[in-house]
Amino acid sequence: MKFTLESITKDLVAGDRRALARAISLVEDGGPDAVWLVRQLFPKLGRAHLIGITGSPGVGKSTLVDALIAEIRADGLKVGVLAIDPSSPFTGGAILGDRIRMQGHTMDKNVFIRSMANRGHAGGTALATYDAARMLEASGYDIVIIETVGVGQSELSIAQTADTTVLVLMPGSGDDIQAIKSGIMEIGDIFVVNKGDMPGANKTASEIIASLELSTKGAEWKPPVHVTNAEVNEGTRSVWESIRKHKNFLDHSGQLKEKRKHKLESELSELVADIARNNLKTSLKHSSHVQGLLLRLCDHQIDPHSAAESVIEDIFSSKEVEQKK
Amino acid sequence: MKFTLESITKDLVAGDRRALARAISLVEDGGPDAVWLVRQLFPKLGRAHLIGITGSPGVGKSTLVDALIAEIRADGLKVGVLAIDPSSPFTGGAILGDRIRMQGHTMDKNVFIRSMANRGHAGGTALATYDAARMLEASGYDIVIIETVGVGQSELSIAQTADTTVLVLMPGSGDDIQAIKSGIMEIGDIFVVNKGDMPGANKTASEIIASLELSTKGAEWKPPVHVTNAEVNEGTRSVWESIRKHKNFLDHSGQLKEKRKHKLESELSELVADIARNNLKTSLKHSSHVQGLLLRLCDHQIDPHSAAESVIEDIFSSKEVEQKK
Repeated sequence: MKFTLESITKDLVAGDRRALARAISLVEDGGPDAVWLVRQLFPKLGRAHLIGITGSPGVGKSTLVDALIAEIRADGLKVGVLAIDPSSPFTGGAILGDRIRMQGHTMDKNVFIRSMANRGHAGGTALATYDAARMLEASGYDIVIIETVGVGQSELSIAQTADTTVLVLMPGSGDDIQAIKSGIMEIGDIFVVNKGDMPGANKTASEIIASLELSTKGAEWKPPVHVTNAEVNEGTRSVWESIRKHKNFLDHSGQLKEKRKHKLESELSELVADIARNNLKTSLKHSSHVQGLLLRLCDHQIDPHSAAESVIEDIFSSKEVEQKK
Repeated sequence: MKFTLESITKDLVAGDRRALARAISLVEDGGPDAVWLVRQLFPKLGRAHLIGITGSPGVGKSTLVDALIAEIRADGLKVGVLAIDPSSPFTGGAILGDRIRMQGHTMDKNVFIRSMANRGHAGGTALATYDAARMLEASGYDIVIIETVGVGQSELSIAQTADTTVLVLMPGSGDDIQAIKSGIMEIGDIFVVNKGDMPGANKTASEIIASLELSTKGAEWKPPVHVTNAEVNEGTRSVWESIRKHKNFLDHSGQLKEKRKHKLESELSELVADIARNNLKTSLKHSSHVQGLLLRLCDHQIDPHSAAESVIEDIFSSKEVEQKK
């Protein structure tokens, strides 16, 4: 039997895991099928809680996610995990058996774990992640966890797909704390110093608290800072409680609506950018004008900005004709 | 006296550091002044060697850059450094005195170090970095080093601004090695295991060599793997020699031309995407149609993909009129 988009949608909504997996693959690939699926499912969505877990490699993000899955399941909720971290054991890259504890959860029909393929640029991965989270929600998952690596600006676009972002550090993460101080603090709604059994955990937590005091002055939400040892589930219940508190705060302060408006605005911006990029790609294959521009650019006969303006004129004049057919 | 774009250009080409600093600020800001500067200077450019230095926080990228500056100066070349790493001491964020060794170099008129501001998304930062490197070259710098943090996909777009990319790791960087294995290997033309005095340095180097053997089978360039202790300049001369060898390889194999064509193609793609993003931003302020779309999107009355298509139609029909005025 051949799968149709209609049957995938029907089965996915009924909670079928294979249909869900297939739908996520389709939204990862992008293109008309992805657009069709999102178009069908989007009207009924918006209730799931999206949680972003981010931090540098080696801080124990996956172990924390694993512990959180247990807490979420204990509350009777269905949870989906999208792993974008290339070093995450969820992505199948890891060979260290002791890190793949979550295999216990993979037998649980209310837990769905999926790694996201690299889309070549951060914006594209963020777009696919938005849509994959939608497939999970449409299939009945109450909570969607998005695991990303890094604390840099480029993780921001992916972390921003979440309603609640948890930034994970470890004792002595001096560089991460610098990064936080240099202004990307706003990505964290909750801070976790994992590997709390290592020396300096409390010092690291104090440093974060000190940085936060300046940057969150007057803010309605004061990001809590937790010290955990996720390996042995120490402190992880409190993290989950903070996540729920943050959700509650978002709901009652009206900030959820505000936050999601910003998210949709930045998604719209990335989608529009993506359409432009794709049109250029097509033109580089089919338009002799655009091909000529690239050659002149390589010979430094035209500068990149002038070339881009000329491309925009070329691709959207033909695009318009196409769209108005 | 007021600066004009003409006087900045003239002084920058004559090697004036203040004019250079000003020009880099202008290209960071983007907009018409940036476009004007690039348009003026681009025709004569293309000879500088762009070197990307990337790696996770804490592996010692800045210390390595510092050591490389000394090697480059010993060869009598002028060198500019663009630091995009938020945790780099070059960016002014660090408070640890012992990491800021390069202060010796800041007295050297043939060394120019500059941190790049966060442009909000990786694509934007890459664009500003391309143009900032152009300002450095126009001002007589033979070598431009671009320091970025991370080994993830989002660093790719910035690392790709370089002709030669050096990936820096440290002993026991298991997660980075996973990331390398999972397919982002291609960003490294040269690999450095820094902090070579730590246990396991040779083992880490062997692991990288083993991964490389598979992925570079049949390739003309076999990325060398160096073990260094940049803190005491150990092994750093060899890294510089490998960088020069790679430049030589690029020149003689014809791959420099090929690589730069790819770079310009991806820059063009990002510029086109940026124009689309900026047009959306303007429309969100001025077009009631686009404002209405965002509101309907927030209410789940229209899906993101359909909204984006409608935005494209709206912004480029008016754009066209503007451009053809």
